[in-house]
Amino acid sequence: MNYHFADRVLTLQPSAIREILKFTSFPGIIPFAAGNPAPEAFPVAQIAEITANIFRERPVEALQYSVTEGYMPLRDRLKRHMAEKHGAFRRGDELIITSGAQQVMELTAKTLCNEGDVILCEAPSFIGSLNAFRSFNARLCGIPLQPDGMDLEALKTALQREKNVRFIYVIPNFQNPAGITTSLEKRREIYRLAKRFDVMILEDNPYGDIRFSGEDIPPIKSLDEDGIVVYAGSFSKILSPGMRVGWCVAPAEVCAKIIVCKQVSDVHSNILAQLIADEFMGKTDFQGHLTRIRDIYRRKATLAMKLIDRHLCPRVSYNPVEGGLFIWCKLSEGINMPDFCRKALENRIAVVPGNAFLVDESEPCDSFRINFSTPTEKQLIVGMEVLGK
Amino acid sequence: MNYHFADRVLTLQPSAIREILKFTSFPGIIPFAAGNPAPEAFPVAQIAEITANIFRERPVEALQYSVTEGYMPLRDRLKRHMAEKHGAFRRGDELIITSGAQQVMELTAKTLCNEGDVILCEAPSFIGSLNAFRSFNARLCGIPLQPDGMDLEALKTALQREKNVRFIYVIPNFQNPAGITTSLEKRREIYRLAKRFDVMILEDNPYGDIRFSGEDIPPIKSLDEDGIVVYAGSFSKILSPGMRVGWCVAPAEVCAKIIVCKQVSDVHSNILAQLIADEFMGKTDFQGHLTRIRDIYRRKATLAMKLIDRHLCPRVSYNPVEGGLFIWCKLSEGINMPDFCRKALENRIAVVPGNAFLVDESEPCDSFRINFSTPTEKQLIVGMEVLGK
Repeated sequence: MNYHFADRVLTLQPSAIREILKFTSFPGIIPFAAGNPAPEAFPVAQIAEITANIFRERPVEALQYSVTEGYMPLRDRLKRHMAEKHGAFRRGDELIITSGAQQVMELTAKTLCNEGDVILCEAPSFIGSLNAFRSFNARLCGIPLQPDGMDLEALKTALQREKNVRFIYVIPNFQNPAGITTSLEKRREIYRLAKRFDVMILEDNPYGDIRFSGEDIPPIKSLDEDGIVVYAGSFSKILSPGMRVGWCVAPAEVCAKIIVCKQVSDVHSNILAQLIADEFMGKTDFQGHLTRIRDIYRRKATLAMKLIDRHLCPRVSYNPVEGGLFIWCKLSEGINMPDFCRKALENRIAVVPGNAFLVDESEPCDSFRINFSTPTEKQLIVGMEVLGK
Repeated sequence: MNYHFADRVLTLQPSAIREILKFTSFPGIIPFAAGNPAPEAFPVAQIAEITANIFRERPVEALQYSVTEGYMPLRDRLKRHMAEKHGAFRRGDELIITSGAQQVMELTAKTLCNEGDVILCEAPSFIGSLNAFRSFNARLCGIPLQPDGMDLEALKTALQREKNVRFIYVIPNFQNPAGITTSLEKRREIYRLAKRFDVMILEDNPYGDIRFSGEDIPPIKSLDEDGIVVYAGSFSKILSPGMRVGWCVAPAEVCAKIIVCKQVSDVHSNILAQLIADEFMGKTDFQGHLTRIRDIYRRKATLAMKLIDRHLCPRVSYNPVEGGLFIWCKLSEGINMPDFCRKALENRIAVVPGNAFLVDESEPCDSFRINFSTPTEKQLIVGMEVLGK
C-alpha cells in the first residue's frame, strides 16, 4: 500500500541522538553521547523496599486503573514542594502528573499551537522538545544563547517580527545541550517580554535539583503573577528516568485542556511508579538522597572538566557547568565538527554533534555535547585522552 | 490572561464516563459504570515476586532510560504470541510497546490523519478512542452496529460518500460498549472494503483474550496480506491496567512513523512494567492465569445476565455476551434513558448513558452500559434489584 501520512509527520525524523545511541550499545564504545543519569545514583534498595511494601499493603491500588491527573497524594506533595522550595505553585495554578517531562512538551504544544503557529526556543535546545513541537507542525524560531541565557535583543526582535507566537520555550537551569544557566535578570526580562507580547512561557526544569555548585536561582514560574507560565518538572534525573514520571504546573484553565489531551494519550501514567515516587519523597531522607547524587555529579563533572582542560584545551573551549549532565564544547576555528565527531566514533567514543540541537540541523555548528554522567570515571579518563588525540 | 487554545482542543471535553466515575468513588455507590478489570483477577503474588527479582537481579535496567520501541524480549515474545496464537504478525509487520492501547489510537490518528480527514467508526464505540481521534480534529462518521458487527451497507455508502477517509476503527471482540462480536464473514468483508477503497483499518482488541464462552474468531489483522491493518493489543484486561502496557502491530513503514511520534510523546513506556509483563508471560503459567480470569468473568457475566433477566426484562433487552466486561442494555419504548440513568444514580447505582458512546453525543439513544467486572457479586445482586425497581 502507498501509505498516506499526515502532513505533520512527513518530515519528522528520529532524533540524531537516537541514531548515535544505537552505536553506544556496541561493546567497547565510551558513552559520552547519552543523557542518562548516573546508574550509581539510583536508590535501588529503597525503591525495592518501597515497592515490596506497596504490593503487600495496597496491591489493587498499584495495579488498577487510576485517574488522569495523577495520584492525589503525590500531586499534593509536589504542590507543597513547588510552593515551598521554588515559590512556583501560585494561586490559580494546578499540578498534574505526566509520563515524564517530555509529555508536558508534547501536550503543551498540542494544547496551545495550531499548525503554523510559532514557538521561540533557545538555539541550541533539547532536540526531544523541538521534535515534539515539530510533530504539531509548529514553526520553530531559534534565539541564540549567550553565557547567561537567551539573547534578549534577538528575543525582542522575534516577538516583534513573528506572528502567532504561542510560547517561549526555555530550559533555564544547566541547559541541554549548552550547560548554560539563565541569570535572574534575564529570567525577569524574558517574563516581562512574554507578558508584554501576550505569549506564554514553557519552562523546562529537569536538572534544577542537581545543582552541585553555585546558588539556586528562582524559576521563571516563581515570577508568574499573570498565569502565563507552564512549568515542567521530572523525577528522571533525581530518582529514575525509566519510571517516566514528571509533572506539570500550569494555570488551572490550561491544565484542564492538558488533562483532556493526556486522557486520550495514555489515560494516566503508570500508577506504581507514582506510588513509588510519592513514598520516596515522603518516607525516605529525600534531601539526603539529593545531597548524595549531587556529590556524584559534582565529582564526575569536576573530573570531566579537568580532563578537558588537560587533553582538549585550547583547541576546545567550554562553559564551566554548575549542574546538569552536559558540557558543551566548542572547537576552535579550522577544526571541522562533523569530521571530529566521526573520528571520535571511529575511535569508539560517541559524542553528539551540536547541529542536532539546532532549529535547522543543516546550519553549520562548531560545537559538540559531552555527557559526563553516564560514563564511569575510568571511561571519562580514557575517553578524554582519546578525544584529545 | 485570555488563553489562546489550539482549534483541536477547543471543543474537546473530558469524557462523560469520567464525570460519572467521579460519583463512583462516593461511598455506597455501586460501580456499574467503570471499565475496570475485576481486582480479584490481578495476580498480585506473582507480580510482587517478579518485581522483587527484577530489583535484585537487574535494577539499573528497570530504572534507567530505555528505547522507544519497547523492551526487545517482550517485543519478540509478543511477536511470537501474535503470530502463533492469532496469525496476526505477518511479513512486513513490526511490533512496538505502547503506553496502553489508548496510545495506539492516539498515535495512529496523529500519524495518518490531517485535520478534517475522516475516520469511520462503529456506532456506538469506545469514547476514549473517539476523543483521541477528535483531538486531531479528525471528522468521525459512525456506522451503525448490528448484532454481528458493522452494517456493511452503511459502511460501503460511507466509503463511497466520504472524502479523505483514512481508516475504519473496529473493536471486533466484545465491543465496548455494545458487547458485540463481529462475525468472521463481516471481518472479511470489512477488510475487502478497506482494501477496495484504499483506506486502512485500526483494529482494537483489548478483550480478545478474555473470551469465556464460544469460539475464538481470527482477528482482522490475520487477513492482512496488503499491509493495511494497525492492530492494538493490551495487558490492561489480562494483567493490570495501572501498568499502562499495550502493543501495536503495524506495517513497518507505519510503525516507523508511530515510533517517532511516541518518542516525542513519552520517550518510552515505563520500563519496569515492561519487564514485569515479559516475565509474567515467560516465567509463569500464563495460560493457566488466562483460564483463571476467564472463569472469574464467566461467573460474573452469567450472574449479571441472570439478574437482568430476572429484574429488568422485558423492559430491558440486551445481547448476551461471550467475553469482555460490558453488557449493553436497551430500554423498551416509553422509558426515557437519561431519566433512567439519573434515577439510578439517585439510588446509588452508576451506569453510563449510551449517548456517551455516539459520534454525536446529542443524538437520542435508548441504551445504557453495564460493567459487570468491577462490582462484587453482592453488589451485582443488590444493584440489579434496585435497577429493576
